[in-house]
Amino acid sequence: MTKGRMEAFSDGVIAILITIMVLELKVPHGADLADLRPLGPVLLSYVLSFVYLGIYWNNHHHLLHAVRHVDGRILWANLHLLFWLSLLPFVTHWTGETAFAAVPVAAYGGVLLLAGVAYWVLVRALIAREGRDSVLASAIGSDFKGNISIVAYLVAIPLAFVERRIASGLYVAVAILWLVPDRRIERALAERRE
Amino acid sequence: MTKGRMEAFSDGVIAILITIMVLELKVPHGADLADLRPLGPVLLSYVLSFVYLGIYWNNHHHLLHAVRHVDGRILWANLHLLFWLSLLPFVTHWTGETAFAAVPVAAYGGVLLLAGVAYWVLVRALIAREGRDSVLASAIGSDFKGNISIVAYLVAIPLAFVERRIASGLYVAVAILWLVPDRRIERALAERRE
Amino acid sequence: MTKGRMEAFSDGVIAILITIMVLELKVPHGADLADLRPLGPVLLSYVLSFVYLGIYWNNHHHLLHAVRHVDGRILWANLHLLFWLSLLPFVTHWTGETAFAAVPVAAYGGVLLLAGVAYWVLVRALIAREGRDSVLASAIGSDFKGNISIVAYLVAIPLAFVERRIASGLYVAVAILWLVPDRRIERALAERRE
Amino acid sequence: MTKGRMEAFSDGVIAILITIMVLELKVPHGADLADLRPLGPVLLSYVLSFVYLGIYWNNHHHLLHAVRHVDGRILWANLHLLFWLSLLPFVTHWTGETAFAAVPVAAYGGVLLLAGVAYWVLVRALIAREGRDSVLASAIGSDFKGNISIVAYLVAIPLAFVERRIASGLYVAVAILWLVPDRRIERALAERRE
Repeated sequence: MTKGRMEAFSDGVIAILITIMVLELKVPHGADLADLRPLGPVLLSYVLSFVYLGIYWNNHHHLLHAVRHVDGRILWANLHLLFWLSLLPFVTHWTGETAFAAVPVAAYGGVLLLAGVAYWVLVRALIAREGRDSVLASAIGSDFKGNISIVAYLVAIPLAFVERRIASGLYVAVAILWLVPDRRIERALAERRE
Repeated sequence: MTKGRMEAFSDGVIAILITIMVLELKVPHGADLADLRPLGPVLLSYVLSFVYLGIYWNNHHHLLHAVRHVDGRILWANLHLLFWLSLLPFVTHWTGETAFAAVPVAAYGGVLLLAGVAYWVLVRALIAREGRDSVLASAIGSDFKGNISIVAYLVAIPLAFVERRIASGLYVAVAILWLVPDRRIERALAERRE
Repeated sequence: MTKGRMEAFSDGVIAILITIMVLELKVPHGADLADLRPLGPVLLSYVLSFVYLGIYWNNHHHLLHAVRHVDGRILWANLHLLFWLSLLPFVTHWTGETAFAAVPVAAYGGVLLLAGVAYWVLVRALIAREGRDSVLASAIGSDFKGNISIVAYLVAIPLAFVERRIASGLYVAVAILWLVPDRRIERALAERRE
Repeated sequence: MTKGRMEAFSDGVIAILITIMVLELKVPHGADLADLRPLGPVLLSYVLSFVYLGIYWNNHHHLLHAVRHVDGRILWANLHLLFWLSLLPFVTHWTGETAFAAVPVAAYGGVLLLAGVAYWVLVRALIAREGRDSVLASAIGSDFKGNISIVAYLVAIPLAFVERRIASGLYVAVAILWLVPDRRIERALAERRE
């Protein structure tokens, strides 16, 4: 089975998620600059989620680049990841509307955590299919970034109830960590070619 | 005529349907955990419909994999399937909002039934085109899973007015039955290759 | 320039239009069958527009199948068609909400008319590029169906103010006329191959 | 890394943006022609944004046509452009709802300015990758149109507070300037082939 349709479907879902979030930027009734002020936290959470979805799309792109075949198990591991990503607009909006209140910030972390776990499961399913000595397996390696992200979410969720600014800051820090795309796979592919 | 654009269009529609359902997860005004509680049934029906749309996408993917050509009749049989799937967000939301009341649960089953029939019609149109001794025809065979699903929906719809929990449970059972993707087609294709 | 991206973009826009219309099927607050009754005209106009968008996608698919190259002029003729199609959800909802009142029915016809004209302009732009003795030009021929549709819309728009049922019936009649896909192009392509 | 998925993802996002704007065309409660009148400015800003998104899609199409490879930096430059374009529905709706009031018109220009800058950054990233003597670099050349657009936005933003009609007129003028697609790239590609 070819991977083309799975890529196309994932691209479609992520493209829709990244754009429907903007529907929650409710237009103010007034026409003054001051009317934009309440939108501040909504815009902030939108930017954060836009970057996270961009990171997932980017890494998904790199991940599948090193893969040749997919099977039913991989299709479902992928849908499982898309499910958790599909809840991102909901927690984004809740976080923004409540100006980063404790429970929404923790819920945001929970969705990020479950999406992170789903990505990990997808990577395992792909490695199981490609083989332990495949390009993909050597490229992923010990997956330092993935592990540190999961730890950061696990710390941020309870922390949201104590100090929600630091919890939110942790999400930003993880995003910055990932903004550098996963060059490991590109490098491993280049090495194999030589 | 190539099947590429029909696959792309179906992927697009299913990707949109699977994601716009999340727009119905209305963000609570409060910021407490208790504010999430009324969302319980809405989230439950969302998960069920996400899985159903995932199953349809998955099986559609497998089905068209064994097909080489499409014609006008197939394009319309496909649009007919997409029409019934497009009503899934509506009955999903209605079922969730009313916490799985009798009529919405029956309506949910009605949409599943009509989508199931539309899938059956699409399969017949494809077999009519590919031939009775094609890979596809032998892969589909007696279509046990498709038939049992139709029966389950037919039982669940009147049952919703008596015991809506069992009716809803039947939808979950059919989903679990289908979660294992249609390996018959993969197997038949592999056999033909040998 | 290849036509692939223009096809993909058009597929995307039409797939979104065909699905966002369902967002207007507002879920009733009650859970009785009677609560569905006010949705009757909304569902009716949804079905009609779903079929029209299906027809446009289908014919667009056939039209571009016979085309090899696109240029800037064709890209804009295509965007112009997508613009009028993008207004279909608006008039669909208005027609449904007002239970097929005179002005909305006339507006619906106006959007169909302008989309029909835009399709005609796109066909001309494609023929200008492919040449008057191309497969496409001979396949389109005198374009009986396209012309009769334009005439039907022109009759239906004023008629909506006199007898809105006949005007609405004309839209249904045109849709039925088009439901048979444009086999002329398929036939002309097959003949050329021989 | 191939450019296919980046094109598909961009097409998806732009197709969604261009269509979700129509969701803001709220259906009037009445059924008279007079009920459409308040929609005038909303429709006007919709048309303008539809044309701008069409221009971006068109130029993006031409731009990537002359490119062979993409890397992580280009993927993010592209996502950065899509981010600013994703704010277009918001300012479109605000401008329409307030009948082109000063602050919304300035905000509209601000989003156009930042999208223009993001496009410039994407072009630089592509040239950096393709080389200073590539087809792309010679095709872009001094980028007169891009520069004049940035200047026009910079003039229009403060002007919106003085005379919002002229500011809005400047946006229309820039759109007309770009409606002629970027033939420089087509020409350079054709020359190179000879």
